[in-house]
Amino acid sequence: MIPVEIIKHKRDNKVLTKEHLNYFIHGYLSGDVTDYQMSAFLMAVYFNGMNEQETFDLTEIMLNSGKIVDLNYIDKSKVDKHSTGGVGDKVSLILAPLVASCGISVPMISGRALGHTGGTLDKLESIPGFNVNYDLNDYKRILEKNGVVMIGQTADFAPADKKIYSLRDVTGTVDNLSLITASIMSKKLAEGADAIVFDVKMGSGANLQEKDESIKLAKYLISVSKKFGKKAIAVLTDMDEPLGNKIGNWLEVEECLEVMNGKKVSDLEKVNNVLSGAMLYLGKKAGNIDEGEKIAEEKLKDGSAYKKFLEIIEEQKGDTGYIKDWKNLKRTEYSKKISAEKDGYISEMNAFKFGLASIELGCGRKKTDDKIDYLAGIVLDKKCGDKIRKGETVCELWAEDESKTINAENLINEGIIISEKEPEKRNLIIDIID
Amino acid sequence: MIPVEIIKHKRDNKVLTKEHLNYFIHGYLSGDVTDYQMSAFLMAVYFNGMNEQETFDLTEIMLNSGKIVDLNYIDKSKVDKHSTGGVGDKVSLILAPLVASCGISVPMISGRALGHTGGTLDKLESIPGFNVNYDLNDYKRILEKNGVVMIGQTADFAPADKKIYSLRDVTGTVDNLSLITASIMSKKLAEGADAIVFDVKMGSGANLQEKDESIKLAKYLISVSKKFGKKAIAVLTDMDEPLGNKIGNWLEVEECLEVMNGKKVSDLEKVNNVLSGAMLYLGKKAGNIDEGEKIAEEKLKDGSAYKKFLEIIEEQKGDTGYIKDWKNLKRTEYSKKISAEKDGYISEMNAFKFGLASIELGCGRKKTDDKIDYLAGIVLDKKCGDKIRKGETVCELWAEDESKTINAENLINEGIIISEKEPEKRNLIIDIID
Repeated sequence: MIPVEIIKHKRDNKVLTKEHLNYFIHGYLSGDVTDYQMSAFLMAVYFNGMNEQETFDLTEIMLNSGKIVDLNYIDKSKVDKHSTGGVGDKVSLILAPLVASCGISVPMISGRALGHTGGTLDKLESIPGFNVNYDLNDYKRILEKNGVVMIGQTADFAPADKKIYSLRDVTGTVDNLSLITASIMSKKLAEGADAIVFDVKMGSGANLQEKDESIKLAKYLISVSKKFGKKAIAVLTDMDEPLGNKIGNWLEVEECLEVMNGKKVSDLEKVNNVLSGAMLYLGKKAGNIDEGEKIAEEKLKDGSAYKKFLEIIEEQKGDTGYIKDWKNLKRTEYSKKISAEKDGYISEMNAFKFGLASIELGCGRKKTDDKIDYLAGIVLDKKCGDKIRKGETVCELWAEDESKTINAENLINEGIIISEKEPEKRNLIIDIID
Repeated sequence: MIPVEIIKHKRDNKVLTKEHLNYFIHGYLSGDVTDYQMSAFLMAVYFNGMNEQETFDLTEIMLNSGKIVDLNYIDKSKVDKHSTGGVGDKVSLILAPLVASCGISVPMISGRALGHTGGTLDKLESIPGFNVNYDLNDYKRILEKNGVVMIGQTADFAPADKKIYSLRDVTGTVDNLSLITASIMSKKLAEGADAIVFDVKMGSGANLQEKDESIKLAKYLISVSKKFGKKAIAVLTDMDEPLGNKIGNWLEVEECLEVMNGKKVSDLEKVNNVLSGAMLYLGKKAGNIDEGEKIAEEKLKDGSAYKKFLEIIEEQKGDTGYIKDWKNLKRTEYSKKISAEKDGYISEMNAFKFGLASIELGCGRKKTDDKIDYLAGIVLDKKCGDKIRKGETVCELWAEDESKTINAENLINEGIIISEKEPEKRNLIIDIID
């Protein structure tokens, strides 16, 4: 086979065989296919897409480029959750201990902040001492001992995806359903879970801007999961406004601690409980998702989730004293309140703009070597649908100094829309696909 | 500017500004834009195309990446011809001396065999001693002295095009109108001619397979030429069957010598005379193309073209003895006749297949370092529309040995179609655009 002929094949919208993909991906790892050929290929895939079989084959080839963990030695259901990424999406921090506290094994491998969205690893690292860098032996050991493990992507899983992803990032070829699916699934399947719940975000703060695309992605993820013999459910959730009331690494840990200690944050809890419910259902601890959701509510209320969370912190070398001290609000030096310019109802808090603003404040990275300010972020006093008076605070920005808030403030002012009429209530749980 | 943002801009079908293109092309030359970013960009251009302004800007930027020859010291019209490439297309070898013999300066920079098509340089190099490698000073000197010069592409012209073309070749991004136009024009404009005649080939043996695409290319070439203040005419000519009766490097030189010495090869002569006529018209030696065509016929007949051809050979160190000896047919050791399998009319001689067959015989290169067999090739006994009887020779293959003819024979058998009915006559000159 000749690389350029495979590129032309996809360019001309012909279906690639498994042999084509095998040659091209392995050729890329071995150097027979160059970076510039791979990027031309990826752009052709961007335009012409891949069908289900091609997506499945690509996933399998990338999965098999690395190690695949066998978790059969653990005599429990192993269920993981994956979110396509959002703003203020801190669900993993509550859901992982909660579901583990119900006797389900939760092998969770997460990512870092990407684009305008936050990352579970960065949030966990805002806890002093917390270690997300374990090898596969430790991963298996901690999971068996603690019933849950939360670590970062290892180089052992799907090295082909890692190499291809870096290239996609700098060549404008990230946003394609098949490439996204194969990238997510080649890593998720390597973890060893036997069931996966997907939180597919929709709206301004989601990575896929088009509603139809998110629905398609959910279907692709379910379909590929099933082809690999995994049980799977996708929950389509709203990401038009940030989830919960806090955005930023430590701020989000703090909000999770609040919720696990009885504070009501309705949207965050709802998404958490439905996703947890779906995991409990797939892990056979509930007869259906609704029943699972009720169990989740209970586990939040009775402190089981919080107790397990502390065990995770302890097991993974985090400072439990720092955690237990959460009521003593930890904040940056500088803060700035953003207030309403007129009376009315908040009809939009654009999650994308809020996400970009949080990066400006220091919550994320503009360049890969940027340092994160773990205490920086945004605290929302109001949410969509709330009534507000001119001059009242909408949200407060937290940053190292004033200079960091200038761009953030502009973005947030662009992102907030106040209307005279009360806006229609949006569905938080848009659909559930299995 | 950030390279990936420019890639996404084109990917999302937005119009690129001159600043975008300038940054991207110069960034590529300086290393700020990588090979893999350029190839992703080229694939995005392949899918979304470029409008006229973008094509013009790209041409100008690539043109200005190298030297531009000033031929104002020559007090004659400077007119060149460019062919998009075909099979058996040997027109340059007759046309250049013919037009020069009429007092027009012909600065001709040609290419080598590419894909299934032949190249003027390889044909010229089948003449022992003939030198196509001159620097720009020699180029100007020979042109002034001899009124015509035929050399190869120099590294001085459009280095950006050279670097980008190599990448397009191995990434499946050759076949795009704007990229083709900018590549042709950035080199042609550097030569210093003040008028250009384009021979845009149409049909199976053309580089662009779609008829509409060829017409569009002709319009693009004219439009860009005019934007740069050059006079231009495009002649759309048939390339469904090979041009003339001989394919191969020396074989084509030989056929040109025959024609310049009075032999009738009607299709070759017609294309040559119309293109020459257009050059004479643009160079103000004729009032219109028809009048130019008549002058061309005359110059073939009266030996002026042949006389000038010998002067070119002499000036550029070719062996004139070898040329003058053309009647002593120079052939390879081995030959094989292909005969008709049934009675009928030849309704197709697929130029693309004949081109590929000629490469198998040794006329072209499969890899860049392959050696060319200058005497190899195909001699056609019949052409499309000819009546033929079963067993009669259609053509004869010439090669070093039998092994070279096996694939060639298969290709040619695929390329020849004999039908019961006499096929309709095709137009050789399909259209003329200015």
